Amino acid sequence: MQTIGLPHNEYDFHSYTKARRELIEAKLAEFLSGKYPSALWESMRYSVSGGKKLRALLCLASAESIAGLNQEIDLVVPVSCAIEMVHAMSLIHDDLPALDNDDYRRGKLTNHKVYGEAIALLAGDALLMLAIETIIEKTSDKVDRQVLLKVISRFTQAIGASGMVGGQVLDLDFTGKVEDLRKIKNNKAELEAVESIHKGKTAALIKFSVWSGAAIVGANEKQLQLLEEFAEKLGFAFQIADDLLDSTGNLATLGKTPGKDQAANKVTWVTLFGEQEARQMLQKLAEEGMEILKSDELANNQNTPLAELLKYAIYRTN
Amino acid sequence: MQTIGLPHNEYDFHSYTKARRELIEAKLAEFLSGKYPSALWESMRYSVSGGKKLRALLCLASAESIAGLNQEIDLVVPVSCAIEMVHAMSLIHDDLPALDNDDYRRGKLTNHKVYGEAIALLAGDALLMLAIETIIEKTSDKVDRQVLLKVISRFTQAIGASGMVGGQVLDLDFTGKVEDLRKIKNNKAELEAVESIHKGKTAALIKFSVWSGAAIVGANEKQLQLLEEFAEKLGFAFQIADDLLDSTGNLATLGKTPGKDQAANKVTWVTLFGEQEARQMLQKLAEEGMEILKSDELANNQNTPLAELLKYAIYRTN
Repeated sequence: MQTIGLPHNEYDFHSYTKARRELIEAKLAEFLSGKYPSALWESMRYSVSGGKKLRALLCLASAESIAGLNQEIDLVVPVSCAIEMVHAMSLIHDDLPALDNDDYRRGKLTNHKVYGEAIALLAGDALLMLAIETIIEKTSDKVDRQVLLKVISRFTQAIGASGMVGGQVLDLDFTGKVEDLRKIKNNKAELEAVESIHKGKTAALIKFSVWSGAAIVGANEKQLQLLEEFAEKLGFAFQIADDLLDSTGNLATLGKTPGKDQAANKVTWVTLFGEQEARQMLQKLAEEGMEILKSDELANNQNTPLAELLKYAIYRTN
Repeated sequence: MQTIGLPHNEYDFHSYTKARRELIEAKLAEFLSGKYPSALWESMRYSVSGGKKLRALLCLASAESIAGLNQEIDLVVPVSCAIEMVHAMSLIHDDLPALDNDDYRRGKLTNHKVYGEAIALLAGDALLMLAIETIIEKTSDKVDRQVLLKVISRFTQAIGASGMVGGQVLDLDFTGKVEDLRKIKNNKAELEAVESIHKGKTAALIKFSVWSGAAIVGANEKQLQLLEEFAEKLGFAFQIADDLLDSTGNLATLGKTPGKDQAANKVTWVTLFGEQEARQMLQKLAEEGMEILKSDELANNQNTPLAELLKYAIYRTN
């Protein structure tokens, strides 16, 4: 199998992500500085802080792949923060007893374990609204209004019944059916159904992250299409890597309870095909993602961060 | 106490509301015709159907008070439907065991009693996103983009931490403190806190309903300000009427479990001041609301529906 060929590093990936993570954390602190009702805001801040901020980084890196390194970042920061608010909301609601009933996340107690189920549920709802409000209030004087309305519309689609939330429902539908599916794992329709869980649950928001960053700084249709294809590979790979970590990781490095997928009889690429096939799939997705970045319309040194984020999403240890 | 003076009826209120309710129900069915995942869409449709549709009616009536009876309704229908989606979402999340733990709503089983807690929670999230998507997808080619962005931003504020969701959190904060509050019921700060629960929990969305209908059809600043003041009276009155019904109604006429506020030791205008004072407050709010509609900037025959909706919100039996 060929090695993933990354463009020559002309900057340090660690410094690049560190600087942007700090910017995102600072801006999130600013956007989430609400005071009243205090328990609600504390609960919102609790779940937004920390984590990899991968989706925000992808949004910024995508914008920079079009506009140039360090260019027009400010324009995209509010959207990248909004994406992290929604991601936090999805973790809060997912972890509730009514869904996955998880006690740990990002190495600390889950939101409802600290603030109670009622506040956790409402904090999720409030984060969803704050995300949209932030995009409008912080960018409507800088971004073309037609583009902005399209960004918000796509955002709601990526989150709602045809995106992340829909994927979570499919995930529930398939839970407990691993054995049935294994028997028919050559059944194309069933495999596509499993893929669509991943696409919805994780890839939809990741795809939006990459698309929105580029769209806001004026990428053309062809570039947007290629970046979306890239994001779909990355999103799918990210979910498989997540499933692998759940199967092989431990709480200390993972920050959340491992082994839950198998215990809950969840249908994932790993519980369905086993670790080896999952790793092969990951490698394939990584190669396909890299190929897309080499397309004429995208190929320049400026997509190095996107390439490295793809690698990071796949080979991370938490 | 003076009687509420309503403008002369030049149309039939019953026919007016019936025609608009049917329009709203038909449009909601269209906007909620999604198929996959089926359980999610069924759950969403289940909670959006039925009910008084008061918020949608207020949105339409407010638009008509500015543009003229039957004028420019189509322009406002998507927003009025979006408001009903969000209202349905608030009922679904509110009824969950983590919050009010209610079994009946609108005379039928609550959403989670039919679809389970996981689907109910996710259906609420999906409705929130569909609401925003509907506003953009169904009106962005007809409404000025700057106005539309303002409508969406205000919508998120009316729903989020400074609006409806914030009000629900305050409601939780005060639950169980009726006796403490009774002792200090002349304490202005505490009373204002109780008022702010009502303002957030119910009035914020009602205020947005009235504001958005008028804003979309081009009301001027003074008209918008007066309509918001009117809506604040109506919203507060609606909540007090709701609390009175909870205290005096029965399941058959009410469609939801009565007597829950007292049992749960909730702080409402009724549990705090008793029925008589609550009814006096209602009468006062009704009079103040009618006065606002008589202002020069609003006074014309076209605000008859708004006046009758105020009366309806207060003197309804369910």
